[in-house]
Amino acid sequence: MSPERHPSAARFPLVGDEISVGGVPLTLLAARVGRTPFYAYDRALLKQRVEELRAVLPASIRLHYAMKANPMPALVAWMARWVDGLDVASGGELLGALDAGADPREISFAGPGKSEAELSQAVAAGILVNVESERELHLLAGLSRALGRPARVALRVNPDFELKSSGMRMGGGPKQFGIDAESVPAMLELTGRLGLAFEGFHIYSGSQNLRAEAICEAQTKSLALAVRLAAHAPAPVRSLNLGGGFGIPYFPGDTPLPTAPIGEHLRGIVHDAARVLPQAALVLELGRYLVGEAGVYVSRVVDRKVSRGQVFLVVDGGLHHHLSASGNFGQVIRKNYPLEIGNRMLGAARESASVVGPLCTPLDLLADRMELPEARPGDLVVVYQSGAYGASASPARFLSHPDVVEVLV
Amino acid sequence: MSPERHPSAARFPLVGDEISVGGVPLTLLAARVGRTPFYAYDRALLKQRVEELRAVLPASIRLHYAMKANPMPALVAWMARWVDGLDVASGGELLGALDAGADPREISFAGPGKSEAELSQAVAAGILVNVESERELHLLAGLSRALGRPARVALRVNPDFELKSSGMRMGGGPKQFGIDAESVPAMLELTGRLGLAFEGFHIYSGSQNLRAEAICEAQTKSLALAVRLAAHAPAPVRSLNLGGGFGIPYFPGDTPLPTAPIGEHLRGIVHDAARVLPQAALVLELGRYLVGEAGVYVSRVVDRKVSRGQVFLVVDGGLHHHLSASGNFGQVIRKNYPLEIGNRMLGAARESASVVGPLCTPLDLLADRMELPEARPGDLVVVYQSGAYGASASPARFLSHPDVVEVLV
Repeated sequence: MSPERHPSAARFPLVGDEISVGGVPLTLLAARVGRTPFYAYDRALLKQRVEELRAVLPASIRLHYAMKANPMPALVAWMARWVDGLDVASGGELLGALDAGADPREISFAGPGKSEAELSQAVAAGILVNVESERELHLLAGLSRALGRPARVALRVNPDFELKSSGMRMGGGPKQFGIDAESVPAMLELTGRLGLAFEGFHIYSGSQNLRAEAICEAQTKSLALAVRLAAHAPAPVRSLNLGGGFGIPYFPGDTPLPTAPIGEHLRGIVHDAARVLPQAALVLELGRYLVGEAGVYVSRVVDRKVSRGQVFLVVDGGLHHHLSASGNFGQVIRKNYPLEIGNRMLGAARESASVVGPLCTPLDLLADRMELPEARPGDLVVVYQSGAYGASASPARFLSHPDVVEVLV
Repeated sequence: MSPERHPSAARFPLVGDEISVGGVPLTLLAARVGRTPFYAYDRALLKQRVEELRAVLPASIRLHYAMKANPMPALVAWMARWVDGLDVASGGELLGALDAGADPREISFAGPGKSEAELSQAVAAGILVNVESERELHLLAGLSRALGRPARVALRVNPDFELKSSGMRMGGGPKQFGIDAESVPAMLELTGRLGLAFEGFHIYSGSQNLRAEAICEAQTKSLALAVRLAAHAPAPVRSLNLGGGFGIPYFPGDTPLPTAPIGEHLRGIVHDAARVLPQAALVLELGRYLVGEAGVYVSRVVDRKVSRGQVFLVVDGGLHHHLSASGNFGQVIRKNYPLEIGNRMLGAARESASVVGPLCTPLDLLADRMELPEARPGDLVVVYQSGAYGASASPARFLSHPDVVEVLV
């Protein structure tokens, strides 16, 4: 038995010598897909994640799925059944959200460089636009007139605080995202003057955070900021997007985010908001946290080489499908994603091996000298924590290899 | 006048207030393309680079273009007219090379994880396979029998030395690339026994090197290694691929690679090779060096924001088209690529500005606080040194934005 499965790996239980995805043993799944490499997302795990989160959150919190984490159409349609809304980051994602059957009233659109065409799509579809600049307000006013329906807007605020200990900071200091908090009152005035349908605020301070207290602190500050700004608003705040920030553990030493304290804390936030922003729905916008742990990337060993004492498993997948796992997507120091030989879980002798892809570059590295069961050509390498920022965030055309398949199991 | 144009920028001369590509002023080119963002590659510069290099190299050196640097079909077809051969890294690239009209005798295929299907393509097409492992030899033997033509093979050698000061090391120490030099004699014996058509060696020790003396040293060592190994070969060496490694300057402090000393050094190599490997053609395999400086990436300013004193130019292109320029493709420390406001080259007041893309992530950064002419929406941002590892090496689908256009001018 694999001595120490990563907690994420344990979500994919063993069937004999193999892991399983959605109850299907890995080799059977690979045969069903028909070729490697592929991504497989477990629909039961996706649903379970939403349910577990709802169990600890106040009932009134609205959960949104941020499509940017994984825009696979079948997955988005599945997620749309369990969450309260979808967040999109482009006109393309907006079309995907509508295809998935999401209610336009529960779709919101953020992004610092929205084109006029995208804003027009948003107004026509009747979704909520998280406005990032004065330019967008003026464009939306013109589009509202042209299309005969007022744009629904929330102001995206660049807060005057940061989400501490965050993988990516998206608020605080100078940022391309949103409107500086101190400039929001003037923009609220303009929003009213332009006749736009003001609905609230979007405050997204950071992502990939594993510390509950940092997230709670940012939520408290976000509510206080929204209350301050609401005094200048042309209409009551009906929506307050508190952002996300919920991280998942990737590397040794990372511990899963405890959600119970966040739920507890949000009970206080909900209580306070009912008093100070009585009409506001409170929204959490989560991408990676909802889908990241439900997906695996599976590639097949093509060759096993020993070069100067080091074992290399050459697989048919690599950074062209999974840039993050290669350590080339925002990481400062490359670390190994959790990875297993998915069809050799029991009893095999173990060795130190590096897993590399087929690309003719040393960057194409999925595992650097990991302790793994001895594998041979035909075996299946599984990279966990691969449900978010995988296929869509990778340079699929690099070196003109076949595209990756994605399946929802 | 822009006070200090990057040497790469000076290849795109001014026409009035604008840069030009292939003689076409930038705004006219953007109108001709019909939308932004786009990559433009200057065919005259591409040809000129080959000619300039040939002028300093011995006449007998064969120049190959490594398609992985830029597989745009029109560009590959253009390059195929000026170089002596093409190097491919996948079955997909092989099809592209054949489409481009390259002579199969002058196509070679390297890559550590070639599939059986790719090897079959290679044997059927009659190209040279740079063999990376014993497994490939056995597969090629079977395919030779099945297809009724012997596979043309060179052994890719993982040398017992490194290319010093290289951006990426691809030889020396334990590597997934090639066959360890010390194991090559046994593989040569096997090559003969399997009846494969042995043609020579491929020794690619590293890439993106700006030091001529390091490249010369590696070439000397490569020849010596090839001579040592040739003693075990089943047939005379007819092809010796000395690799590439020629880098281009990206960042302040980088100086262009001096090619004259390499040419001079190669004269000695050619002289020696004529004696010790009299039948061997000497090949240089260059990708980035041939095409990298001939291309620009052009995006349009969508919004100009000032956040807490810092200017942000939000453009319609970004890391989804040009991952390298965002600093997320193999770089350890992010530095700004050379960049200009291509339609405001004269007389504008200058300011410090950051150029960011439309993606909802702080990684989407094309320039971090650069000194630039004051720009406004509609202006065109030009990223230089973008002819290699650009469009094909970027996560085009990230956030579902429109794909980038590529043109050869």
